[in-house]
Order: sequence, then C-alpha cells, then structure tokens
Amino acid sequence: MPPEVALEMARPIVHHRTPEFSAVLEQTRGRLKPLMGTAQEVLLLASSGTGAMEAVVTNLLAPGEAAIYVDGGKFGERWGRILGAFGIIAHPVKVAWGGAVRPEQIEQALRQYPGARAVLMQASETSTTAVHPVEQIGAITRARDVMLVVDGITSVGVFDQKMDQWGVDALVTGSQKALMLPPGLGIAALSPRAWERAAKPRSPRFYFDLNRELKAQRDEHTTAYTPAISLIYGLNKSLEMIHAEGLPAVFARHRLMARAAQAAARALGLELLAAENPAPGVTGILTPARIDGSRLVRYMRDVLGVTVQGGQDQMKGKLIRIGHMGYVAPFDILVAIGALELALRAEGYDFRIGAAVAAAQAEIAAGQS
Amino acid sequence: MPPEVALEMARPIVHHRTPEFSAVLEQTRGRLKPLMGTAQEVLLLASSGTGAMEAVVTNLLAPGEAAIYVDGGKFGERWGRILGAFGIIAHPVKVAWGGAVRPEQIEQALRQYPGARAVLMQASETSTTAVHPVEQIGAITRARDVMLVVDGITSVGVFDQKMDQWGVDALVTGSQKALMLPPGLGIAALSPRAWERAAKPRSPRFYFDLNRELKAQRDEHTTAYTPAISLIYGLNKSLEMIHAEGLPAVFARHRLMARAAQAAARALGLELLAAENPAPGVTGILTPARIDGSRLVRYMRDVLGVTVQGGQDQMKGKLIRIGHMGYVAPFDILVAIGALELALRAEGYDFRIGAAVAAAQAEIAAGQS
Repeated sequence: MPPEVALEMARPIVHHRTPEFSAVLEQTRGRLKPLMGTAQEVLLLASSGTGAMEAVVTNLLAPGEAAIYVDGGKFGERWGRILGAFGIIAHPVKVAWGGAVRPEQIEQALRQYPGARAVLMQASETSTTAVHPVEQIGAITRARDVMLVVDGITSVGVFDQKMDQWGVDALVTGSQKALMLPPGLGIAALSPRAWERAAKPRSPRFYFDLNRELKAQRDEHTTAYTPAISLIYGLNKSLEMIHAEGLPAVFARHRLMARAAQAAARALGLELLAAENPAPGVTGILTPARIDGSRLVRYMRDVLGVTVQGGQDQMKGKLIRIGHMGYVAPFDILVAIGALELALRAEGYDFRIGAAVAAAQAEIAAGQS
Repeated sequence: MPPEVALEMARPIVHHRTPEFSAVLEQTRGRLKPLMGTAQEVLLLASSGTGAMEAVVTNLLAPGEAAIYVDGGKFGERWGRILGAFGIIAHPVKVAWGGAVRPEQIEQALRQYPGARAVLMQASETSTTAVHPVEQIGAITRARDVMLVVDGITSVGVFDQKMDQWGVDALVTGSQKALMLPPGLGIAALSPRAWERAAKPRSPRFYFDLNRELKAQRDEHTTAYTPAISLIYGLNKSLEMIHAEGLPAVFARHRLMARAAQAAARALGLELLAAENPAPGVTGILTPARIDGSRLVRYMRDVLGVTVQGGQDQMKGKLIRIGHMGYVAPFDILVAIGALELALRAEGYDFRIGAAVAAAQAEIAAGQS
C-alpha cells in the first residue's frame, strides 16, 4: 500500500450521507471506468471480491437456471461453489491447472447445454497464474443470449480490460490487488443487457442487491448500506496515482515485471505452471522435483523476510507464486528472486548463485532501454 | 476515530494467511467477547453491519419458515425486508416510533404464530433512539424453540450486552459506531442452539456462510475469504483502548452523555422521541412545531461545522439525532447542544440562549462529582 493511500485512509471519517462523501464516491466510481474498460456504472460494495462474485451470480441468475463455468483453478472452482450454493445448475468446463480455456471448449459446452444462461470465468486465475482468453469468449457469448461473467480480481489494473468492447456482461474486482489498497471493497459493473436481467428478481439477495445499489450510487450519490468509507477514500487516492502514472505505463510495468520473473525461472532451469499464457500480475514457478515448495515459502518468509505464496490445493508444495501487482516496481522482482535463490540453495538445489537475479535484471534493463 | 486507530490502520498490510495476522485475529475476536457478553465464538465478516444481519437470517432460517420481528423503526423494518428477500414469512410486531416493544406483544405474537422460529429485534433502534427490552424478551424465547436474534449495532460497546445470560441466540454489530472504527466490518456471535440450527442448510448463502467462517476463524485462525485486514488491525487497537478505559467506565460515559443531551432538550422545552426508554448512544430530540428539522441539520453542518442527524422516513424533518457513541467525550455534547441552540435561534425559536448548554454542563458536573 502506498504511504499516500495510508495517509488518505487515516483522515477523519465523514458520514456517508454528506455532499463531501458523495463527491468522493462519484470521482472514485468514475476513475474505475477506464481500468474496467466500461462506460457503464461501476458500483462499490462493502465486501471482499468474493462478495462481488456472489453479487453478480445472484443478480443475474435464478435457481434452476443453468450456467457454464471455467474450472481451471481455485477461483474457477469458487464460481462453481457460488452457483451451487444458490441452486443454479453449474456445468464445469475443465481446464488443467496452468492451462487456458480454449474458446472451442466454451462453444462445445454451449452446444451441450443450450439452456445455459451464462459463462463464468476468471480473466486471470490467481491460483494457477494463467490468463484466460476473455475477448475470444466474449465473441462467442455476445452473439447469444448468454451472459459473460468475469472475475477481474487479478486483472483489473494489471492489464487492459475492455469490458464493453469484448462484450463482458459482468466484471468484478476487489480492492487489495492492483488497486493498492487493503482488502474490504468489492467492485462490480454490468452491461446494459445484464442490467435488464438484473431488473427482474433472480436469486434471493438483500445485501448484494445490485439494483438497489445502482439506484443509491447513481441517483442518490451514496450507497444503499453503510459503505467502507475509509477504503473508498483510499481507493480514490490510489486511482489518482494510477492515472497519474498512466494506464499504458502501469500495464507496461506489470508486463516487464512478469518478463523479469519468467526469465529468472528459465535461468534456474525451472518451468512455469502457466507456460503458454502466464499472467502479468503473478508468476507461478514449479519447484524442482524432491524440493518442497512449502518449505521454500516458509524459509523465504521466516528467515529472509520476503513474502511469496505457495501453491493451493493440488499444487500445494509444488509451486512458488511471486505476486507483482499494484504497488510494486521492477526492482522488487530482484528481491523476490534473490530470496528464492537463497531458499533453493538452502534446500540443496544445484544452480549458479546469482544467475536468476542477473537474468531478471537483464530483462529489466531491456525494458527500460 | 482515535488517532491511535488511524495509525494502526496505516500499517503495511500483512497477508491474511500468516501467523502474524492469525495472532491479531485471535486477539481481536477474544477482546470482543466481553462487549457482547458471550463466551461463544465471535466472527468477523468483511461487510457492513447489514451484511451481518443478513448472515444470521440466512444461517438460522429457511425459506417458508416464519419469524416475528419488532417493527418500530427503520432498522426493525430492515429485519422484515431481509426476511422477505429470502422467502421467510415475516410477522411484524408494530411499535410506534420512539416506543419500546412490550414483552406481552412478543408473547401474543408467539401465540398467534406458533410456528415462528425466531424473534428479531434491535437492542437499540438508531432511527428512533429507543432501547428495546432484550433481557425480558430473552426470558420468553429461551424457554421455547424460538431463536432471539438481536441487532446490537448501536448497543455493543455502548451499554452492557449480556448475550449468554439473557439467552440471545444471535448478536450482530458493526465496526463504525461504539467500536470507533471506519465502517466495513460486520461482527456476529451465535449461541450453542443457534449453531445447531446453522449446522443444517438453511437459506441459500455463500459469502455469509457462518459455518464456513466458524471453521476458518476458530480452527484455522484466518477467515474463509479475504478479510478487511486494516480494519481488523484497527479494531484490535480500539478494543485495547476500550478495555484500558474499562467497560464499566465506557458504559458510564455513554450514560452521562445521554443524560446531558436529555437535560439540554428539557431546558429547551423540547420532547425526546423516545421519552420512556432513550438510548445511551444517541439522543433524539423532536423539533418544535413549524421548524423544519432538516434545515436545522443543514445549518449546523454547513454554517457551524457540527454534524448531527435528522429524522428518517416518517420522522423526516421532525427530529434531531445527536449521536454520542464511541470516540466522544461529555464535552462534545456541549458542542452539539451549542450548535443546536444557534440553529434554533436562526429559525426564530424562542428560548434563553445558553440555557441548554448550561443544563448539559450541570449534568456533566454532577456525573463527574
């Protein structure tokens, strides 16, 4: 979190039914639109990103309706669990962890389940560090009466999201990744046809009633229920910083950090989990055979003071995930890779010390020139 | 918000699956128990207090079941709307705004609707500034298979809540009132028999699945989904401050501020909306006939820089609500009353200037001696 944002959030709390708060809410919602690639209303929710995922499910789909979801990682599985919790028939499109869904898989699923009313997916699946082809899937769904619902929690603010242009019907994100904030804000935008669906009662919902939030936020310039005021002030500041850097520069910085981390993995002789479609916001490096990734993560954290994530579920102990989203700069990659080298050495992995750091640095140098 | 809390929340964000976060989460949940009067697990949710209200409804009640709720203000009505949104049959017990529900009304409703599985109420109804008799209603419900569900958003940390002793089955609150924090945290505790009910699937829910949160928070020392980390750190600090002051002193301070505000109203010749059962956390003063309360509120805010609330819905324009919960001290009442005097004078109300401030000060002096 940038110190500017921390200071903004330390301001005295204003009440959420005041002209002062309304002005900040309006500015914040407006500043989010270019990051999401939409001219539609962007709504803020007092919840984590998972709350925003639930919100779009319960506002767009009714119990007994069917939906297709991309099941290629922990967050894809979460779409399936949310659908199931609300009695929506959930058809998974299975993708091996690290892979990207192929548009033909979606076309086939739509033929197999012609009653499906939505396709739900991640733009970037954080658990596998893979990017999925939202634009190509939008080309399939936009021609049919099928909503495309996208989790952008690790893509919004990381790489270009063209919600309107790609035909995305619902795009959600959270505050704690590229938006450089503490967690606690969910963010959602809907397409005009999604708003039409949401206008009729769908699944039971109250706290996450997006129609009510639309009316409150668009028409009354406040939120339906008490908002996470300090986080909204902080978000307005972080968005100001993002726009001052410029979105193309922000996206280029993320791509450069990803290339540096990828080059480091190659220099170590290690594979990426998402070799064909690695995410710009997080790099997943497969640990060498016979080395426990969880031990690497703990060593880096407890001995070296550097935080990276391990693998989840089926990748537990087999993966190191280096996050490089938001308030991070290319040289931070050198720190993470430097720590990874020391952890690998402590586990007896055979490589030339400094090789990965040098490879990352060469990418950074090339990117700066 | 105290500056100590603002500073705590400005700390660098730690990841929520680390030993450091687990320790803070545990301490925070433990520090909440005395404020709620419970030995049960207290759960933190990334939501406003309304989210916590929805959570207890959807975890304790199933569609088609019946429940009784106290309909005596805006937040009582909210229980009814949440019940309705989830297909639970909602029977209101009507109470005139400003009044307290009488235990006989609950007994009668339970006779009239013997299938009702729960009674839902506010401990303190913020919109009417009235306190409801939770303890007496607990004496009725605890003897039957009827859950008592209490909104403590403006009572927890304001006056003594004896959840376990009173037989309350679910008590919820939020971060932004007596807990001296920005909004964005919901808090909930359930009784053993409520946990038994919640163990079976009730209404559709995912983000607010309390069983899942119980398992995560009690057993894994983290939250099911990404928590509002900065707010939890802030809450841990504000609870440290509350316990340092001591709960009896905190409650006495709130009572003293309420008495001072009530004395000021009397000195102005004005009535309290909740004359028989005024809340210790907020005082509602009826505006004089022919004076628009909304104009008073705006004048105090825009000309004098003092924020009070007006009336909502049926009390719009007829009520001034002076909040005195959390990070406020008795002399803050003098500021609010001083501003109210000037606003009343600007509207031509006839009274001796300084009389209300003097009356409030006399109460404060008596309370200090």
